[in-house]
Amino acid sequence: MATAQVMYDFIAEPGNNELSVKEGEVVTLINQNVGGGWIEAQNSRGECGLVPEDYIKVGTAAYPDAYSHKSANNTNNQIANGNNPVSRGGGYSSEPTEGWNSQGHTQHHTGEDDDDDDEWDEDWDDSRSTGGDGDTPVDDEGGATGRNTHTHRKLTLNKFPFSKTINPELFLLAKLPPKGKDRLSIYMGDVGPVWLYSDSPLDCVVADPKKGSKLYGLKSYIEYQVTPNTTNRPVNHRYKHFDWLYERLSEKFGPAVPIPALPDKQVTGRFEEEFIKMRMERLQGWMCRMCRHPVVSNSEVFQLFLSYNDEKEWKTGKRKSEKDECVGPLIFSTIDVEAPELDPIDVEQKCEMYSKFTKTMDDGVKDLLNVGNIHWKRCTGPLPKEYQKIGKAFQNLSSVFNTSGYQGETTLTDALTAAGKTYEEIAQIVAEQPKKDLHFLMETNQEYKGLLGSFHDTLAVHKAAIDKVKEGDKMMLAGKINTQDKVTMAKRTSIMAYTLQAEMNHFHSNRIYDYNRVMQCYLEEQIRFYETIASKLKLALGQFTTL
Amino acid sequence: MATAQVMYDFIAEPGNNELSVKEGEVVTLINQNVGGGWIEAQNSRGECGLVPEDYIKVGTAAYPDAYSHKSANNTNNQIANGNNPVSRGGGYSSEPTEGWNSQGHTQHHTGEDDDDDDEWDEDWDDSRSTGGDGDTPVDDEGGATGRNTHTHRKLTLNKFPFSKTINPELFLLAKLPPKGKDRLSIYMGDVGPVWLYSDSPLDCVVADPKKGSKLYGLKSYIEYQVTPNTTNRPVNHRYKHFDWLYERLSEKFGPAVPIPALPDKQVTGRFEEEFIKMRMERLQGWMCRMCRHPVVSNSEVFQLFLSYNDEKEWKTGKRKSEKDECVGPLIFSTIDVEAPELDPIDVEQKCEMYSKFTKTMDDGVKDLLNVGNIHWKRCTGPLPKEYQKIGKAFQNLSSVFNTSGYQGETTLTDALTAAGKTYEEIAQIVAEQPKKDLHFLMETNQEYKGLLGSFHDTLAVHKAAIDKVKEGDKMMLAGKINTQDKVTMAKRTSIMAYTLQAEMNHFHSNRIYDYNRVMQCYLEEQIRFYETIASKLKLALGQFTTL
Repeated sequence: MATAQVMYDFIAEPGNNELSVKEGEVVTLINQNVGGGWIEAQNSRGECGLVPEDYIKVGTAAYPDAYSHKSANNTNNQIANGNNPVSRGGGYSSEPTEGWNSQGHTQHHTGEDDDDDDEWDEDWDDSRSTGGDGDTPVDDEGGATGRNTHTHRKLTLNKFPFSKTINPELFLLAKLPPKGKDRLSIYMGDVGPVWLYSDSPLDCVVADPKKGSKLYGLKSYIEYQVTPNTTNRPVNHRYKHFDWLYERLSEKFGPAVPIPALPDKQVTGRFEEEFIKMRMERLQGWMCRMCRHPVVSNSEVFQLFLSYNDEKEWKTGKRKSEKDECVGPLIFSTIDVEAPELDPIDVEQKCEMYSKFTKTMDDGVKDLLNVGNIHWKRCTGPLPKEYQKIGKAFQNLSSVFNTSGYQGETTLTDALTAAGKTYEEIAQIVAEQPKKDLHFLMETNQEYKGLLGSFHDTLAVHKAAIDKVKEGDKMMLAGKINTQDKVTMAKRTSIMAYTLQAEMNHFHSNRIYDYNRVMQCYLEEQIRFYETIASKLKLALGQFTTL
Repeated sequence: MATAQVMYDFIAEPGNNELSVKEGEVVTLINQNVGGGWIEAQNSRGECGLVPEDYIKVGTAAYPDAYSHKSANNTNNQIANGNNPVSRGGGYSSEPTEGWNSQGHTQHHTGEDDDDDDEWDEDWDDSRSTGGDGDTPVDDEGGATGRNTHTHRKLTLNKFPFSKTINPELFLLAKLPPKGKDRLSIYMGDVGPVWLYSDSPLDCVVADPKKGSKLYGLKSYIEYQVTPNTTNRPVNHRYKHFDWLYERLSEKFGPAVPIPALPDKQVTGRFEEEFIKMRMERLQGWMCRMCRHPVVSNSEVFQLFLSYNDEKEWKTGKRKSEKDECVGPLIFSTIDVEAPELDPIDVEQKCEMYSKFTKTMDDGVKDLLNVGNIHWKRCTGPLPKEYQKIGKAFQNLSSVFNTSGYQGETTLTDALTAAGKTYEEIAQIVAEQPKKDLHFLMETNQEYKGLLGSFHDTLAVHKAAIDKVKEGDKMMLAGKINTQDKVTMAKRTSIMAYTLQAEMNHFHSNRIYDYNRVMQCYLEEQIRFYETIASKLKLALGQFTTL
């Protein structure tokens, strides 16, 4: 039988017919046709079990590269996005010493495993070379309920599809294709250039996560129900479909519309339910933001995602979308601006202002996240412990008093016990509070952190265009462009500048709405918190006799 | 000129005409008649200045013992009470990292110095061999505003005057003096044996601390105004007079009535005003407790302290009190009990119960003090810092938003700034809160810690008496006592037992009152705290626009 060398450590989950292997170990291949990315192997001690096929290097044949993304078994290989799945964090953890995780990227294993394919997705790999994250399975840190998985994915792919084509020359100097029907309009609103907004805003609900399984229950995945307000008809999507959508949107709109990364990286949680809920919430947040964007929400690919009628339509739409050529800087060619051409100096100043703003806001948001994280830790850790100790100390004193043998003690001791219990309740309230208020504040800022991060590349395209225009004279002298080209470049840079302004205005208006909302929610919950404690203390006070 | 050897390090306070000296150093005595416990000396470098006379050993004459408490200059020597004045603590400190000090005994130097005498007190030293603490001057840790003082007082005097005479035989077997007029009555109340309480309870106010000075302003002291509700006429007392009173009361009543130590040891504070206020508050608390005690409040010495008419009366009364022979265990000979003799086994069980109760309550009180101290530190330290940071983060975000250049931003930024400022205010409220609620809870428990501590020696007298009665038969066999003596002992032990019960019942009734009161105050202030914050947050919330 053929042998293979193990390339990365793999620890089997007990009871799942898997085999633990160590890097460098040689195993004998028993069955290479198991499917789902698994191979049945036997180690030198004669133990048999399943091993992920991309963890081993079979002989000299078949797998010239362990990261080759095609296999004879039609597997959907996993590609890590530079994120180490064993890094740990503990946001929203039930353990009070850990805080809201704004830095760490712990991912939770849900028992869901998407590194194989199913029939529904059989065309998945055909059309793309850089696989998405899939529902990356990760160690859940507990060991017992989860699974230790691939800890050695070293291959980092750039998630930003258009960064290869960041050069805006494609738009500035190219002969553009004829104007199609999908035109994007920018007009002058009260606040300056704005996108054309729809009268009936799109919205959708992400809900009802369901676990599905494959390979006789060995592998499982989560499917979310996505229901848009347009059709009011749910469609099912797995995480990897969201990821596919993200990539399409980034590729197509990225230079004009910063597409925030999917929230997977920040999703943490010790328990499967908690994890699924959190991921769903964040997918909901991401989808909402996309729905709110006039360009994204109107796009064919987004509409397809939300309201395909059947699998056939979905597949056809997917293929079409993946073949779309009007992507990257070319998106600017679809934009109509009804406004006079902008002065290049103005354009540059605006761009610098936006750069500075997004940078300082990013700092501010990170600062708030840091402070919030520290506060989260205190509120769920030492503080409730202290209230608990105060409560215990009161109750303890009450017990001591009860042994006095003195008459007429009970009113005091009962009241003291009640006060003690109240402080234990307060401990509980304090520990639970961050989930009620700080959570949403942190989530919103976390979302903005992602959004602001995605501005970087978008702004880079604009800066490159401005530089190109500045080089105009030099290029003319060098005979690289002619006068007409220069005029065209200035004109097209102006279109880009209007786009950027429309996008920034969109961002600002959303930001004002979002922060207004989140601050109100935070303060409302904080008020409720303080009032709840005050009312509990009032009840406790009432137990004491007025002397 | 005479020379002297320095026995302990002394660090001069700058600008006060003092001279720093080191242990072992030899100084030349310039003027031994400076007075006030000071001697003018010159060191080997020719520097001159004042040195405390009990820090140096003059030649071979005059001071056979550095702690001899008489000097030619009529000084009132300081005697440390086993308390190391350089030990540090920081309760009620303005520095947020330090907590309520329930352990450390830092004392604050007030610029007040009582180790000399003044005319008003010229008979002070004549009548006692163990000087009181006086207003022990201590290092205030700051160095500049305070004074480094006697760090080497190794002599520890037992502050409990009757511990030499803890042996209750004096009462159990002695031929008692004829019954005088000062009889103490115990009768059977609802809760068992109780002291006879006065219909018009005594009370007094300690207020209006005034700084006096001596030696041309070099030395100063604080005088407190004590006004009893009986005469409503204030009398002035310095700390050392309180201390004198404490000693008289302990000596006279200690075996029957535990006299809590004066609060000096726990008094801390970085600033003179704070220190004086705190000491005054605690002297007030101590006086109140004494006033509330039916035996103490009725005693001649206590009445003298509260309501002497002039210096002559005070001095005469002091001398009389110091010569009182009915002190220590003999106090039991002044007690009249109208109740049947108690069974010795009952007596022993009661005594054990009280022992156990005071011990467990002491543990409970210390536990609460520890928890409170930790909470104090958190509430004055990290917690407000965090609220401040949250406030700053909001305000920072508001500033960033203000640079957006987007129209219609100000409603949000104003509201965000207001919210930020509110959290800064909350930080302040949180930091100030312990002084409003935890302070009184800690003070009360601190007082009870002292009170429970003073029970130890009182209970020891009772236990010794019980043991003595148990030895009765053996003593009879040894011919040490006769049958009549044995009967007398049992009878007198019964009187002691009634006294202890009356005292415990007094303690319990006070304890119930005190804890009821302190818990109510604590909860009321806590409610106010939470409600204040809630209402501030409501104002902040109102600034946001409802979208």
